[in-house]
Amino acid sequence: MSNYANTKDELDSLKERLPKWLEASKSLSTGGKVASYIPELSKAPQQALGIHIIDASGDSVSAGDCGLSFTMQSISKVFTLLLALMDNGEKAVFDKVGMEPTGDSFNSMLKLELVQPGIPFNPLINAGAIVISSLIAGSGPDEKAERTLQFFRSLSGNERLQFDLAVYQSESETADLNRSMAYFLKDNGVLEGNVHDVLDVYFRHCSVQAQCADLARMALVLAYDGTDPITGVNLVPRRYVQIAKTFMVTCGMYNASGEFAIEVGLPAKSGVSGGILTLVPGRYGIGLIGPALNPKGNSISGVHLLETLSKELDWSLF
Amino acid sequence: MSNYANTKDELDSLKERLPKWLEASKSLSTGGKVASYIPELSKAPQQALGIHIIDASGDSVSAGDCGLSFTMQSISKVFTLLLALMDNGEKAVFDKVGMEPTGDSFNSMLKLELVQPGIPFNPLINAGAIVISSLIAGSGPDEKAERTLQFFRSLSGNERLQFDLAVYQSESETADLNRSMAYFLKDNGVLEGNVHDVLDVYFRHCSVQAQCADLARMALVLAYDGTDPITGVNLVPRRYVQIAKTFMVTCGMYNASGEFAIEVGLPAKSGVSGGILTLVPGRYGIGLIGPALNPKGNSISGVHLLETLSKELDWSLF
Amino acid sequence: MSNYANTKDELDSLKERLPKWLEASKSLSTGGKVASYIPELSKAPQQALGIHIIDASGDSVSAGDCGLSFTMQSISKVFTLLLALMDNGEKAVFDKVGMEPTGDSFNSMLKLELVQPGIPFNPLINAGAIVISSLIAGSGPDEKAERTLQFFRSLSGNERLQFDLAVYQSESETADLNRSMAYFLKDNGVLEGNVHDVLDVYFRHCSVQAQCADLARMALVLAYDGTDPITGVNLVPRRYVQIAKTFMVTCGMYNASGEFAIEVGLPAKSGVSGGILTLVPGRYGIGLIGPALNPKGNSISGVHLLETLSKELDWSLF
Amino acid sequence: MSNYANTKDELDSLKERLPKWLEASKSLSTGGKVASYIPELSKAPQQALGIHIIDASGDSVSAGDCGLSFTMQSISKVFTLLLALMDNGEKAVFDKVGMEPTGDSFNSMLKLELVQPGIPFNPLINAGAIVISSLIAGSGPDEKAERTLQFFRSLSGNERLQFDLAVYQSESETADLNRSMAYFLKDNGVLEGNVHDVLDVYFRHCSVQAQCADLARMALVLAYDGTDPITGVNLVPRRYVQIAKTFMVTCGMYNASGEFAIEVGLPAKSGVSGGILTLVPGRYGIGLIGPALNPKGNSISGVHLLETLSKELDWSLF
Repeated sequence: MSNYANTKDELDSLKERLPKWLEASKSLSTGGKVASYIPELSKAPQQALGIHIIDASGDSVSAGDCGLSFTMQSISKVFTLLLALMDNGEKAVFDKVGMEPTGDSFNSMLKLELVQPGIPFNPLINAGAIVISSLIAGSGPDEKAERTLQFFRSLSGNERLQFDLAVYQSESETADLNRSMAYFLKDNGVLEGNVHDVLDVYFRHCSVQAQCADLARMALVLAYDGTDPITGVNLVPRRYVQIAKTFMVTCGMYNASGEFAIEVGLPAKSGVSGGILTLVPGRYGIGLIGPALNPKGNSISGVHLLETLSKELDWSLF
Repeated sequence: MSNYANTKDELDSLKERLPKWLEASKSLSTGGKVASYIPELSKAPQQALGIHIIDASGDSVSAGDCGLSFTMQSISKVFTLLLALMDNGEKAVFDKVGMEPTGDSFNSMLKLELVQPGIPFNPLINAGAIVISSLIAGSGPDEKAERTLQFFRSLSGNERLQFDLAVYQSESETADLNRSMAYFLKDNGVLEGNVHDVLDVYFRHCSVQAQCADLARMALVLAYDGTDPITGVNLVPRRYVQIAKTFMVTCGMYNASGEFAIEVGLPAKSGVSGGILTLVPGRYGIGLIGPALNPKGNSISGVHLLETLSKELDWSLF
Repeated sequence: MSNYANTKDELDSLKERLPKWLEASKSLSTGGKVASYIPELSKAPQQALGIHIIDASGDSVSAGDCGLSFTMQSISKVFTLLLALMDNGEKAVFDKVGMEPTGDSFNSMLKLELVQPGIPFNPLINAGAIVISSLIAGSGPDEKAERTLQFFRSLSGNERLQFDLAVYQSESETADLNRSMAYFLKDNGVLEGNVHDVLDVYFRHCSVQAQCADLARMALVLAYDGTDPITGVNLVPRRYVQIAKTFMVTCGMYNASGEFAIEVGLPAKSGVSGGILTLVPGRYGIGLIGPALNPKGNSISGVHLLETLSKELDWSLF
Repeated sequence: MSNYANTKDELDSLKERLPKWLEASKSLSTGGKVASYIPELSKAPQQALGIHIIDASGDSVSAGDCGLSFTMQSISKVFTLLLALMDNGEKAVFDKVGMEPTGDSFNSMLKLELVQPGIPFNPLINAGAIVISSLIAGSGPDEKAERTLQFFRSLSGNERLQFDLAVYQSESETADLNRSMAYFLKDNGVLEGNVHDVLDVYFRHCSVQAQCADLARMALVLAYDGTDPITGVNLVPRRYVQIAKTFMVTCGMYNASGEFAIEVGLPAKSGVSGGILTLVPGRYGIGLIGPALNPKGNSISGVHLLETLSKELDWSLF
């Protein structure tokens, strides 16, 4: 894995090559579409593409539109899973969500009706992530959301991470399909508590605003098995990071995860804002933004850029 | 259709034969189950079976537990459809609900996701009936529910028909699957207005309390194409009654409608309370109650009794 | 039902009015498509429309392209069902096929996999009709097909009915989906015997060539409960005719049966050749051909013409 | 990855520990079921459990019933995929099969009907593997099967690998569901050629008889990116091995692949005979047999043994 013995040499080489690769991928963005089902998201710049790569010493390389802020959306689901595991343990979590990819769209409800016992197939599809939101400890939605935000801040080393209230509001107002899913899960006996409150936590963690460097730093903690290599602080037990990375391989890129595993071969999670968080185990954390999406909901230019990186530098796990 | 030239002779003959048939059917109730998903419904007497048959002159025959009061549940959907047709016309209604049986359970959401344009297949499954509730005219849920109740009163000739508030409350508290469906329909752009308000109207018309004689009288109006033959008052345009009767044949008995058409051959609508409303066109209105249900949700003894009647008296339309 | 006291007067009136109605419906055929999945069928004239209506005295009226010969295709399924019932009785038949409409396309396999015990939902969808073909008595496919043809000849009073070998050959060569279905049914334990032989019988009865007058005469037997009113010969027990007519209402027009019941209200069966067989109980047998199909597989101009007839003459059963 | 710096030390330690672990896992076999849908398979000993682990120097450790011969069944699909890739290249193969896990049973046909363009989701489910069989070069089924066998022999270094004709015969006689699938694929335009011939190749490669040591040696070639480390001969291009290993992670253990990735974390492929082929990249090839299956079709004791090994020795890729 990787053509370079150490990350320093590789990052040096990337400083020169990355901008060209980024330009080549950026041209694909005209073939994608910025998400519009959450109205606030549709304001994102279609042509933007930015990437930030950081290693354990804190050295980094970046290219493109890294100054762009965006909401984490589904990327947050990796970290709420970690928090729910830390709050509840493996058994309690996997009593309520499964471990299998679905082959269906991330917001499909088919398997909830067709496959008994009617629990979500995995924690990274919407139904699963809503159940995970219900498992975060706290006395009410405010405390749960606040704990989540603090956890994200500690992982990113960025104390200024905040909710984007306009996106939160916009998502909350247009989230009838998520509401439908939550009530279905409640009827199935999977979701406990007040549906409105659970969804409120869910909408809030999806609306955490970040930049590429924040995602890269969060990913770096995963690349180093739960310990921030820059501070040396252990933030997540290694086993939970292993679980999260495995889900990122099998289910992280919606129902294009199989193809991404073959073409890129790295644990990754995408969001409808066009963000992708990925990592090279033991080497790098990577954050990327490219708002134009392909038909399966992943950044069209972002996926292309990651394919280039993985193939040129031999990064695939497989 | 029918072995008797006139209804008077037939009713006379029934006075003797009906009690025996009813007893034979009643014994089947031990093999059924009283609905329990709405807690309040589970209090109904499992062994009960009652039937009331009325003709155009107001002559009637009844047998069994006709003094039992029960909520109309899905039976009400035939009449809210009529009201929605009278309020909106055919075109507006059938822009939002289809005309086809589904082959699925009455509360299935599969086809809403799988079959474009994502409108309910027909107005008698839950999804369709919720849309129909949204189409009833009125300035708010109270007025819509009140208009519905008044319509039911005029059809039954019983001004004392009322909502059963305990059942309404019980259904409202346990209706997460209906909530899920309503939000899905809203997301699909089929349901307009406030979901809570629409469901409130829906739960209320399901909770109208009636007895067999009330259902029989409402059915009699359908048997006479919209005109109450006892008062001579036209209550519903004939075309809308034709539409309703056709749906009762193709979709009235949940996903056992096909079998009921073959074994009984009459327009009918059942409810989870165990009620069945059916009719012999141009002859009778019939109301029946038998709370023990078969696996598809129809009164187990009630269906058997109607099979006996139809076969002995040659009542099938076909 | 019907605006006319006797069929003679009605037929007289139709002689004048029918040609105009037919012309109006015929213009719709440009919006439909001739079936092409069986290559031989694609040769049919897109603009053609013909209808033949016959009463119990043998009086008839016809209009349009009644000289056109076409294959019965799915229309044959009504009569193989009758033959299988006569050969095996109700119980043996309904152990292997259900009585419910599906809401799915006629060649869908979804419910065979999703709904236990994996028997076809009804005898008029392809899966069901294949099972019915396997139940026709006879020592081998030749004898079974021959018995079927003789039965069709007796019902139509036309001893010259024959298989259209070119269509049979064409269908047999392109029937991979039907083969898939048959093997699935065999795996489910529903279909017995050799798949190739069963399908051979199926393809042959679908390929029986007829004209509108033949269909009308076959329908007339159903309109008179199994007795040919012209010869007085009883050909099918009344109960089996009742079963067949009920299926024609609930499932006869593919997954547009519900709409046809509401807009026309008569028992009917369509075929992909563009034929429709329908009847007015106690009055008429009707045969129709119009090869241009609507998206659900029914003759686009034919359905329109039947709507006109039913509405103008008040023919609906409901 | 792995607690040991070199494989020699790890294998030495395993000689002592493996038999105990195997005994502990073996006791689970009473809770599983030997596959019976292919009658010949049902003769396998339910209690058996054997494992063979080999490293690049040819050193190996084995335990349990390694003398048992069994058919490769679905394990063969990894290698027919490799052969099809070598025969046709990536593009031609992935025009006809996708790259995504399905979440459905390995023999489900739902997505072939529901998801356009109706190609199998991946090459390791039955539908996909049948398409792959059709892509193996050769002038007819005999040559295709022979080429496949020769390829398996070269990978295993065992020139005596043979088809088990009794299993082949048994499978061929009971494979109606696979026939159904093949005809569906032909109708969808995905499968070319004669269905009987394609399935003949498929049944034959499923019936190749092997022992644990054979699987281990084949897996070793994958663990070393296509080059047999013992002979130094390159047998498969590295990119194709990468593709195969990725599919083994996302789809190799039927619809329990997600859970296996989380609990074991190694590329693996199971078969209904109870065999599992897995590997530790750059270290070991592993072959395992345990005929008693869990409800998802994987060796119940075998999966448990691999979990123990992975957790005790820290083998997960993630």
